[in-house]
Amino acid sequence: MKKVAVIMGSTSDLPVMQDAIDILKEFGIDVDVDIVSAHRTPEKLFDFGKNAHKNGYAVIIAGAGGAAHLPGMVASLSPLPVIGVPVKSSNSIDGWDSVLSILQMPGGVPVATVALNGAKNAGILAAQIMGSSDTEILSKMEAYKQGLKEKVIKGAEEVKKKG
Amino acid sequence: MKKVAVIMGSTSDLPVMQDAIDILKEFGIDVDVDIVSAHRTPEKLFDFGKNAHKNGYAVIIAGAGGAAHLPGMVASLSPLPVIGVPVKSSNSIDGWDSVLSILQMPGGVPVATVALNGAKNAGILAAQIMGSSDTEILSKMEAYKQGLKEKVIKGAEEVKKKG
Amino acid sequence: MKKVAVIMGSTSDLPVMQDAIDILKEFGIDVDVDIVSAHRTPEKLFDFGKNAHKNGYAVIIAGAGGAAHLPGMVASLSPLPVIGVPVKSSNSIDGWDSVLSILQMPGGVPVATVALNGAKNAGILAAQIMGSSDTEILSKMEAYKQGLKEKVIKGAEEVKKKG
Amino acid sequence: MKKVAVIMGSTSDLPVMQDAIDILKEFGIDVDVDIVSAHRTPEKLFDFGKNAHKNGYAVIIAGAGGAAHLPGMVASLSPLPVIGVPVKSSNSIDGWDSVLSILQMPGGVPVATVALNGAKNAGILAAQIMGSSDTEILSKMEAYKQGLKEKVIKGAEEVKKKG
Amino acid sequence: MKKVAVIMGSTSDLPVMQDAIDILKEFGIDVDVDIVSAHRTPEKLFDFGKNAHKNGYAVIIAGAGGAAHLPGMVASLSPLPVIGVPVKSSNSIDGWDSVLSILQMPGGVPVATVALNGAKNAGILAAQIMGSSDTEILSKMEAYKQGLKEKVIKGAEEVKKKG
Amino acid sequence: MKKVAVIMGSTSDLPVMQDAIDILKEFGIDVDVDIVSAHRTPEKLFDFGKNAHKNGYAVIIAGAGGAAHLPGMVASLSPLPVIGVPVKSSNSIDGWDSVLSILQMPGGVPVATVALNGAKNAGILAAQIMGSSDTEILSKMEAYKQGLKEKVIKGAEEVKKKG
Amino acid sequence: MKKVAVIMGSTSDLPVMQDAIDILKEFGIDVDVDIVSAHRTPEKLFDFGKNAHKNGYAVIIAGAGGAAHLPGMVASLSPLPVIGVPVKSSNSIDGWDSVLSILQMPGGVPVATVALNGAKNAGILAAQIMGSSDTEILSKMEAYKQGLKEKVIKGAEEVKKKG
Amino acid sequence: MKKVAVIMGSTSDLPVMQDAIDILKEFGIDVDVDIVSAHRTPEKLFDFGKNAHKNGYAVIIAGAGGAAHLPGMVASLSPLPVIGVPVKSSNSIDGWDSVLSILQMPGGVPVATVALNGAKNAGILAAQIMGSSDTEILSKMEAYKQGLKEKVIKGAEEVKKKG
Repeated sequence: MKKVAVIMGSTSDLPVMQDAIDILKEFGIDVDVDIVSAHRTPEKLFDFGKNAHKNGYAVIIAGAGGAAHLPGMVASLSPLPVIGVPVKSSNSIDGWDSVLSILQMPGGVPVATVALNGAKNAGILAAQIMGSSDTEILSKMEAYKQGLKEKVIKGAEEVKKKG
Repeated sequence: MKKVAVIMGSTSDLPVMQDAIDILKEFGIDVDVDIVSAHRTPEKLFDFGKNAHKNGYAVIIAGAGGAAHLPGMVASLSPLPVIGVPVKSSNSIDGWDSVLSILQMPGGVPVATVALNGAKNAGILAAQIMGSSDTEILSKMEAYKQGLKEKVIKGAEEVKKKG
Repeated sequence: MKKVAVIMGSTSDLPVMQDAIDILKEFGIDVDVDIVSAHRTPEKLFDFGKNAHKNGYAVIIAGAGGAAHLPGMVASLSPLPVIGVPVKSSNSIDGWDSVLSILQMPGGVPVATVALNGAKNAGILAAQIMGSSDTEILSKMEAYKQGLKEKVIKGAEEVKKKG
Repeated sequence: MKKVAVIMGSTSDLPVMQDAIDILKEFGIDVDVDIVSAHRTPEKLFDFGKNAHKNGYAVIIAGAGGAAHLPGMVASLSPLPVIGVPVKSSNSIDGWDSVLSILQMPGGVPVATVALNGAKNAGILAAQIMGSSDTEILSKMEAYKQGLKEKVIKGAEEVKKKG
Repeated sequence: MKKVAVIMGSTSDLPVMQDAIDILKEFGIDVDVDIVSAHRTPEKLFDFGKNAHKNGYAVIIAGAGGAAHLPGMVASLSPLPVIGVPVKSSNSIDGWDSVLSILQMPGGVPVATVALNGAKNAGILAAQIMGSSDTEILSKMEAYKQGLKEKVIKGAEEVKKKG
Repeated sequence: MKKVAVIMGSTSDLPVMQDAIDILKEFGIDVDVDIVSAHRTPEKLFDFGKNAHKNGYAVIIAGAGGAAHLPGMVASLSPLPVIGVPVKSSNSIDGWDSVLSILQMPGGVPVATVALNGAKNAGILAAQIMGSSDTEILSKMEAYKQGLKEKVIKGAEEVKKKG
Repeated sequence: MKKVAVIMGSTSDLPVMQDAIDILKEFGIDVDVDIVSAHRTPEKLFDFGKNAHKNGYAVIIAGAGGAAHLPGMVASLSPLPVIGVPVKSSNSIDGWDSVLSILQMPGGVPVATVALNGAKNAGILAAQIMGSSDTEILSKMEAYKQGLKEKVIKGAEEVKKKG
Repeated sequence: MKKVAVIMGSTSDLPVMQDAIDILKEFGIDVDVDIVSAHRTPEKLFDFGKNAHKNGYAVIIAGAGGAAHLPGMVASLSPLPVIGVPVKSSNSIDGWDSVLSILQMPGGVPVATVALNGAKNAGILAAQIMGSSDTEILSKMEAYKQGLKEKVIKGAEEVKKKG
C-alpha cells in the first residue's frame, strides 16, 4: 500500500501536524514525516516535490504558517494530490495569512485546503483519498464516521441526564 | 473507471462550476452533474450523500455560495473525499462567507477546499485524487503540468519580443 | 404552552448555550436541550428538524461554531423559526467563520442570527417570539426590560457617587 | 390577525426592503410600511418603538445601512421580536458596518439578524414567527418550502437535459 | 466655562473611559460622568441628548462596545459635537463591531470617532474643541504637546545610553 | 469669525472633499481650500500645521486615501481639532487602509475621524465644533437637524402613498 | 551599472507591472522583463533565483496575484533584495490574498512589499536601493522628489483659482 | 562603510525592533538607534529625514504601531530606501492598522514593508540592500542562507529520529 507524506515548514509546526500523523496511524496507513522549508531549504523542496510520486506516496500533507508557500510549491512540483494545513503561527495575523496563502492557488495548481490548524482533518482527507480506490480503507472510514456519531449520541445522553 | 459527481446548490452556480466539468472531461473522466440544495432539497442531499460511494463515484465536487452548507453536509454523509468550491454569489460579503462556511469544518469531517470560484482546480484535484491510484491519469496529470509550463514559457517569449 | 428546543453541535458548546436555557427558565418557558451535530449525526439532525413542529416546539435555538451548519440545516428542515447562535470555538478564525456560516443564508431559508456567543439574547428572542402571541409572556418581557433599565440607573448612581 | 411593520432608515432602502413586503403579502399577512430614521427622526423612532405592540404588530422588520442603529433602537424600545436587515448602502465598507451594527447587540436586547440585503428572508422569518402560534400560516410555510424544493428539482432536470 | 459630559453604555466601560476623565481634569476642564445605555435606558438617552446643550456642555464624549449605538444616537439628538469611543468589550469581534457602529454614521449626523479604547484621545479632542475658542485651553494644549515631545526626547536619550 | 481649513492630499480627493466645503458654506462659515500632501510636500505640511492656529482657523478638515498620513501629521503639528476624512482611493484595499491610518492614532494625538468618504459629515462636525461656543451656529445646527427630520417625514408620506 | 529584473507570474500581470518598468527607464536604469511562474515553471524559478546575483542584477522585482508565491520563493533562492508587488487578480479576495502571501514571510527570508498594485513604487524602491551606493541615482531621486512636490504645488494653485 | 539607522516611534517598540539591531550587528554592519515619533516629535522627524543621506546612512529601518506614520513620513523626506516594520501595539486592531498604514503608500513614495513584528527581516533586508553593491556583505548573505538551510536539515533529522 502507498504511504502518506506529512511535511511541514518548521519543527515548530509539529505540535499541530502531529494530529495528522496520529489519525493516519489509526487508519493503519504508513506515514513518513519530514521538515521541508520552502524558504530555507528550496533544493530539498524541489527534490521532494519532483520525486514524491516515485517514492511510494499517494498523497502529500503539507503544513505551514504565515506566508505559507510549502503546500502550493509542492503542488507545483508534484502530480499527486496535495493537502494544505494552514498553521496559526506566532506572528500570524490571526491565521488569515496562512489560510489565504494556501487556499487561493491559481488555476491549474490546486491545494486541498483544510481548516486553520486542521491537521486531523488533513489526515482523514488523505485516508478518504486512498479509500476512494481501496475498499478496506473505505470501510474503516465508514466505521470511523459511525464512531463519531456514537460519541455525540453518548454526549447527548449525558447532557440530558444533567439537565 | 469510477466517476466524479459535480453538484451545486443552485443553477446560478453553473457558470462557475462548468470549469470543473470541462477540465474533468479533458482528462477523460466521466462526470455526473446535479443540482442538490442543502437548504431547499435536504432529502435529496441525504439521499445523494448516503449513496454516492455505492453509485460509482470516486470523488464528489460540491459548489455553493453564501452560507455554503452543501460541501460540508455531503462530507458529513459520505465516506468519499469531498472537494468544496466557494462560489462568490451576488449578495455574498466579498466571498468570505462561502470560503469560511466550507473551509472551517470541525475535526472529523474534512472538506478539501479550493480557491474562491476555483472550480477548475476542483476538477484537477479530483483527477489527482483518481490519479493517485491510476497510473494513466497520473501520466495525464504530468502531461497537463508540462502543458502549463510550455504555455508560460511561450508567453514569456512574447513578452520579451515586445519589450 | 409550547416549548423551546435548545440544540447545539457539541457538548463543548454547552457553557455558552447555558445562558439561553437559564433565561428561558427565568421567563417560565419549558426548554428541551439536546446535542445534534449536523456533521456527525446527520440522521438525528434530519429526524429532529422534520418533526420539531410536531413535537410541541414553538421555536428552535441552535448553537454551533466554526463552519456552523446546524442552524441553517435545521431551518432547511423545519417550518418553525430558527435562532442561530454563533459560538466562538477554539480553532475559529476570531468567530468570523461561525457568524458568516449562520448569518448568510440564501433566500427562502432564514436563520435569526444573534451576536457571537449571544445565547442569552437567543433565549430572550425566543421568549419575544412566543410573547408576540401570548400576552403573559409579553408582560414578562416588558417587566424584564424595566429590570434592565433599573439596573443601569442604579449603576449610574454608584458611578456618580464614586466620581 | 396581527400585522407586520416594515420600517427602514431611508427611502433609498426601499428597493432592498420591498422583498420583505412582497413575500409577506404572498403569505397573506398584512404589512405596514414606514420610513423611520434613528438618526434623523429620533422622536418618531421613540413613538413607533414604544407603541408598536399596542398598534397590532406581531413582529417588526427594520432595515438600515452603514452604522445601522434603527433595528437595535427599536429592539430597545419594544417588547416585540425585531428582525434586522443589514442593507449594503453606497458608502458602506463592503456591508460589514451594517452587519456588525445590527448583529452584535448587547445581552438583554436581541435583534434577529438576517443576511446582508436579506429582506426576503426577513419576511419569511416574520411569517415563521407568526406561524409558530398560527397553524394556517404554519401550513403555508410548509407549502412554501415544498415549492422551493420543486423549483430546485425542476432546475436540476433542466441542467441534466442540457448536460 | 462649559463642561464636558462623559457618558458610557455600561459601568463595565468605566475602566476604559476613565482616561478621558483624567486627561480632561488635567486640562482643568469640568467633567460630568454618567451611565446612559441606548439599549436599556432609551428614555434617559433621549432626555440627555435633547438637553445636553442647555445643561452647560460644550462637548459630549460617549463610549460603548459591540453594536455601539450610544454615540450615534446622542449625535442624533444633540446639536453639540459628539466624540465616540469604540470600547473593545468581552464578546466583541476584535473591536470591529464597535469601531464600525460608531464611525460609519450616515450623512447629516457625524460622530467624531477616535481609536479603539482611545478614551484619552477623546478627552484631548474635547479639550482641543474647547480650545478652538478659548485661548487659555489652546495654550495648555500647546504646552501639553511640548510635554509629549520632551518625554520622547528623554526616552531617546536613554535608549542611546543603553545602546 | 474664525475659518475652517479644508485640505487634502491630492486634487483627486476634491470630488469627495467638495461635500465638506459645500455644507460649511451652507452654514455661512468661511472655508479655505488647499492641497497639502504629507508625502510629496512635507515642508508645506509642516508650515501649514505649525501656523494654522495663528492663521485664523478654528478647525482643520483633512482628507486622504490609502496610507493616509495627512490628518494625523497635521494633528501632530497643530493644537487645533483636526477632522480626518478617509477617502476611498483607486488602489485602496476597500477603504480599510485609509480608515485605519486615520482612526488608530496613538495616545496624545487625536484625529476626529468620520465615515469613509464622509466629507459632508466632516463639514457638519466642524460647524458643531464652532457652534459649541457660538450660539448663532448652534441655532443653525438645530435648524439643520429639523430640516433633516422634515425631509424624512416627507419621504415617509410618499412611501405610504405609493404603498 | 547593474540591472533590475522585473518578473511576474503571468502575462496578465503585465499591465500592472509595466509601471515598474517605465519608472526604472525614467531613472535610466536597465531592466530585464520575464515571466516566471512559481507554480507552473518551478524549474525556471529555481534557475532564475539561483543565478540572479551572478547575472548582473542588483535588485529583483516580482509581481504576483492570489496565493502569490513568486516573490517569496525568489527571496528564498537569491541573496539579492527582492521587492514584491501584490497584484489584485480577477478571483482575488479583494487583494488580501496576494498582500498577505507576499508580506508575511518568515524570519530569515524578507520580501520588501509595496502597496497592492504598487508596481510604480516597486520601481522607485529599486532605484533607491541602487541609489544608496550610487550618487548619480541618488541625485536623480532627489530631483524626482522635487518634481512630485512641484506637481502638487501647481495642482494646489489650480484648486485655489477655481475655488 | 555606510551605516543603517534603526528608528522607532516609541521606546515600547524597542523589544520588537531589537531583532533588527541584533541581526545587523551579526552581519558586521554599524547601526544607529533612535526614537523618532512622527506624532510627538515632528521636528526631529523632519530633521532626521532631511539629513539621513548626508549622515552616512545607506538604509533607514523605521518601526511603528497603530496608525503608523513614521516609515511613510521618513520616506517622504529622504531619498534613501526606507524599510517599514509594522509593530503590533497594545490597542492595535490585530495589527491590521500598522500593516496598512505602512504598506499602502501612494505612488511616488514607497516603503519596503516587512511582516508584522518582522524586525529581524527588516535587518536582513537592509543587509541585502547594502550587499547589492558590496560583495563582502553579499557573501555573508549567502553564508547566512546556508546556515538557515543547515538548521532546518538538522531539525528534520531530529524529527525523523523521534518519529
